[in-house]
Amino acid sequence: MPDFPTDRSGLEILPLTECLRLLASVPVGRIAFHADGEVVILPVNHLVDGQDIVFRTASGSKLSAAEKADIVAFEADDYDAQTKSGWSVVVNGRAEILYENTETQRLDGLGLQPWPTAVDRPFWIRIRPTSVSGRQIPK
Amino acid sequence: MPDFPTDRSGLEILPLTECLRLLASVPVGRIAFHADGEVVILPVNHLVDGQDIVFRTASGSKLSAAEKADIVAFEADDYDAQTKSGWSVVVNGRAEILYENTETQRLDGLGLQPWPTAVDRPFWIRIRPTSVSGRQIPK
Repeated sequence: MPDFPTDRSGLEILPLTECLRLLASVPVGRIAFHADGEVVILPVNHLVDGQDIVFRTASGSKLSAAEKADIVAFEADDYDAQTKSGWSVVVNGRAEILYENTETQRLDGLGLQPWPTAVDRPFWIRIRPTSVSGRQIPK
Repeated sequence: MPDFPTDRSGLEILPLTECLRLLASVPVGRIAFHADGEVVILPVNHLVDGQDIVFRTASGSKLSAAEKADIVAFEADDYDAQTKSGWSVVVNGRAEILYENTETQRLDGLGLQPWPTAVDRPFWIRIRPTSVSGRQIPK
C-alpha cells in the first residue's frame, strides 16, 4: 500500500509538509534557470527557511538570475540504488537577492557552509515558491 | 594539488572523457527544460550511449519536449557529505524521440530498467550534446 495517493505514473504525490521536510534533509540541491537560450543547472548547498530555499553565491549566473528576479526551479532528490527507491521535490519560484542586513545576518547565523571554499560567497539568494511538488517511488 | 585546472570559483574543470565516465557511473540524472513558462526538472534513469544520454519515458512532458526537439539540459552529480566533496556534469543538447527499430532494439538490449514500474515507458529519448561540462570540488 502506498503511503500517499499516486499520480498517473504510479508515483506517490508528496504533501507540502513532507516536501519541505525532504528538501531540508539533504545538503545539496540544484537550481535551474534559463540564460542565454540555454537551461543552466547548477548544484548548490541550500537551506530551507520557512517555505523558502536559501543559498549563498558569489557573483555569476546564479546572481544574475536573482538580479532579474527570474523564475527558477530548484530540485533536490535522494535515491537508493539497492532498493530502487527514491524521491524528488521541485520548487518553482522567483529568485531574489537579499540585501537587508537583519535578514542576511539571521541567515549567516544558520551555519550554512558552502562546500567549495576557494571563493567567498557573500550573497544570499532566496527562492520564494510559487509551487512545490514532490514525488516518491512507492516502497 | 588539484587533479585538473580550476575555474574562477576554484572548482576543477573536468575533461570530456571524465565527464562521460562520471555520467555513466550513476543511475539517476535530471532532465530540465522550458515548458509553459516554467523550468521543469525531472529525475530519470539514464544510460550513456557514446556521447549521448538516453532514457525511457512514457507520454508526458519529457516526451513533449523531445517531440519539439527542444534544447534541454541534463545533469548528474554525486557528492559525499562526510568529506564535502562532489562533482556535477551538465549536458546541453537537443532531445529527440527515437523511432528507428534497429536503434530502439539495440537500446532495449542494454538492460535499462526505470525504477518506477507502475507504467510502461515505451519511448526512448536521446539527448545529443552540444556541450558537456563538468566541475569537481578539489579533494
